[in-house]
Amino acid sequence: MMNFDLTKDYLSELKALIDNKDSKSVLSSIEDCHPADIAEILDQLDFENASILFELLEDEIAADVLVELEDDLREKLLKIHSPKEIAEEFVDNLDSDDAADIISELPENKKQEVLSHIEDQEHASDIVDLLNYDEDTAGGLMAKELIQVNSNWSVMRCVKEMRKQAEDLDFVYTIYVVDDNNMLLGTLSLKKLLLTDSKAVISEIMKEDIIKVDATLSQEEVAYTMNKYDLIVLPVVNDKGQLIGRITGDDVMDVMKEEAEKDYQMASGISEDVESSDSVWEITRARLPWLLIGMVGGLFGAKVIGIFDIEKNYEMAFFIPLIAAMGGNVGVQSAAIVVQSLASGTTSLGNISQRLIKELGVALVNGIICSTIILCSSYLLGYGFELSLTVSIALLSVIIFAALFGTFIPLTLNKYKIDPALATGPFITTVNDVLGLFIYFLTGQLILSI
Amino acid sequence: MMNFDLTKDYLSELKALIDNKDSKSVLSSIEDCHPADIAEILDQLDFENASILFELLEDEIAADVLVELEDDLREKLLKIHSPKEIAEEFVDNLDSDDAADIISELPENKKQEVLSHIEDQEHASDIVDLLNYDEDTAGGLMAKELIQVNSNWSVMRCVKEMRKQAEDLDFVYTIYVVDDNNMLLGTLSLKKLLLTDSKAVISEIMKEDIIKVDATLSQEEVAYTMNKYDLIVLPVVNDKGQLIGRITGDDVMDVMKEEAEKDYQMASGISEDVESSDSVWEITRARLPWLLIGMVGGLFGAKVIGIFDIEKNYEMAFFIPLIAAMGGNVGVQSAAIVVQSLASGTTSLGNISQRLIKELGVALVNGIICSTIILCSSYLLGYGFELSLTVSIALLSVIIFAALFGTFIPLTLNKYKIDPALATGPFITTVNDVLGLFIYFLTGQLILSI
Repeated sequence: MMNFDLTKDYLSELKALIDNKDSKSVLSSIEDCHPADIAEILDQLDFENASILFELLEDEIAADVLVELEDDLREKLLKIHSPKEIAEEFVDNLDSDDAADIISELPENKKQEVLSHIEDQEHASDIVDLLNYDEDTAGGLMAKELIQVNSNWSVMRCVKEMRKQAEDLDFVYTIYVVDDNNMLLGTLSLKKLLLTDSKAVISEIMKEDIIKVDATLSQEEVAYTMNKYDLIVLPVVNDKGQLIGRITGDDVMDVMKEEAEKDYQMASGISEDVESSDSVWEITRARLPWLLIGMVGGLFGAKVIGIFDIEKNYEMAFFIPLIAAMGGNVGVQSAAIVVQSLASGTTSLGNISQRLIKELGVALVNGIICSTIILCSSYLLGYGFELSLTVSIALLSVIIFAALFGTFIPLTLNKYKIDPALATGPFITTVNDVLGLFIYFLTGQLILSI
Repeated sequence: MMNFDLTKDYLSELKALIDNKDSKSVLSSIEDCHPADIAEILDQLDFENASILFELLEDEIAADVLVELEDDLREKLLKIHSPKEIAEEFVDNLDSDDAADIISELPENKKQEVLSHIEDQEHASDIVDLLNYDEDTAGGLMAKELIQVNSNWSVMRCVKEMRKQAEDLDFVYTIYVVDDNNMLLGTLSLKKLLLTDSKAVISEIMKEDIIKVDATLSQEEVAYTMNKYDLIVLPVVNDKGQLIGRITGDDVMDVMKEEAEKDYQMASGISEDVESSDSVWEITRARLPWLLIGMVGGLFGAKVIGIFDIEKNYEMAFFIPLIAAMGGNVGVQSAAIVVQSLASGTTSLGNISQRLIKELGVALVNGIICSTIILCSSYLLGYGFELSLTVSIALLSVIIFAALFGTFIPLTLNKYKIDPALATGPFITTVNDVLGLFIYFLTGQLILSI
């Protein structure tokens, strides 16, 4: 299989083939494509062409493609399929976790109908099981398909039983060892299985110290665990310690991507998950709230400036953008470091006052450097000594206050279990804008006696 | 093994045990810890205690711990070990990829000495091989340890050969099939191996369509590939197509984390990879450059305001913060959407003009809503109709220009192979601040005739 690069030419050729109803050529042109590539193609086509192409696919491939599609296209395609079709064409061909994800997106009545049409009873009950877990937890991420052997078995029996279990599995990553009550005891490496005498008992050759997670653990913590311990498969147990599923690294990569995007979007003032391919209205909805916060801040800023007698010292207006921008920039920097440290779990030991003291140090160094530069350069640019001094002193204070605010707010949010990433981006910028203006004009009042 | 939570109490107890030179109790208190947990503990101790604890560990565990440590502590610990110790205690106990990572951090002369002390010649040559690849490529991420079988072998011979190869391996994730020239042909699933007659030939039961990457591929693209195709192991080939290694999902998770952190830091105006545990000076160095950009922008802003006769219409100063903030916010939002789309590869088909037109749509909707609100609210707050109108019209123009700029700059940077994330954060804010002020005062000149 070639690594795939979707070009415009390829896409317009494909469209032409679909328009000509030339099913054979359409299929042969996507013959070598991975389901993920076919999904990428479908996402780029309009719905009519996408659904024509989708119907041409073999059930097994169509099922895999469906999983990889963007949410809205999948929803539309599922709408034009009956519960029976969804069960027999897609769900029967998918692993339990992917099947559960697809069923969970259906309307409630359709869900039940689809479940009733699943042929394999064990598959159906696995899916029903998975649907009970919150999708943001280990239980929502796991699949039920795995190979498990009993610790009392001999290697020979183990291989025999594995043969049976393997029929339902595409991949085998780890062999889990359980006791008679299905309690997870350890893992068996393929190495041991290959190298040990066939009469040996599993409990003697299994590896006991294994990392496992509870089904109720949040997906962020699952990602953190797999990442920290360098795992690519992770067993999931219920509250009794019984093995109920396993999570693979690819699912956790999706979680990590999601989390990183969320934090990045927060920092950039975008409140929902949007992509450049979304509609104008969707993008607007994600961005407008933050702009409104900025506007309210701007109006407060206007009020702050209005308190002071700017008419007499109108030159102070020149440096309003500088003060506001620096307050915002410093605040965002400070908040970002805190948010990132919290996300990677490294500040578990640090307390708020320690962080504030270090941030104060950074702010002092940055502040002294910046305010010295601004004192000299604005004086040299001819703004007069008193104004230059005002700007310089105000800048130092603004940098210090903005840094402390930027550190304090996300730490406090985190303490009260609110997502600290909320504090980055427009929110902190706006708060620091207003604060900075106040400090600036207060300094001006003292030095320029406005 | 329990999932580990490092507490302050635990840490101070451990410190006391180390101070008392009570090696036995120290070791028993970390007995159940995973190497990643021990690394976390060492990272929290001062260097003296950390090195005492480190020396108490068995070589095999110490090697694994070393890999997980933060860079600076690892560097310090390696400094106090001779090349012979590094080779025999650590490198001999590590997989080729981890061993190569550690050796690559050593000074040039020490590198050669360590390599000369590695006992297993094959291990040494694997490591030398890996050291030839750039650490940011597939070659730099891969490990040489894998199981490979020849397509001409029977299942029986295959199992026999796998037994030999497995001795050097901790985990077996995939069995790779090659021809006589070591060209990668496909994979063999454990399932097939378990379910097929032992006389069958591998070439008949192997899976041929497999995703593989070239050793020179960048780590970002490796992560993208594993993510897109939901893989947890990925084979690496050289330019001839010969199998030379494999990359596991855990390494790619690290890459993804790194990339996400880099983009996030760029957006927040932090230029180097810093953590809250870094020194004041390290944090300052990462943040100061962006603040200086902001200051230069602020000085330009002062000049722009100075061009116009603000004395006559000093009330215009009230809304400087609002205009500057909105320009910055809109610009960052637009840039962030572009950067994220580029990162996830979804804009491969969109061209610059299409993006600009959609962004124009979003800007118009947001702009009209915001400027209407500001027209009404500033008028109601008593700022007079003419000033309110000025602010309102300027705001609409600023939002549109900022959105176009925010879209255009990262797309252009990307076209010229410069990291588009550079355009987010303080840079775009600063540019849009200055641009916004110019538009604002120009509008003021027309309406208020300042």
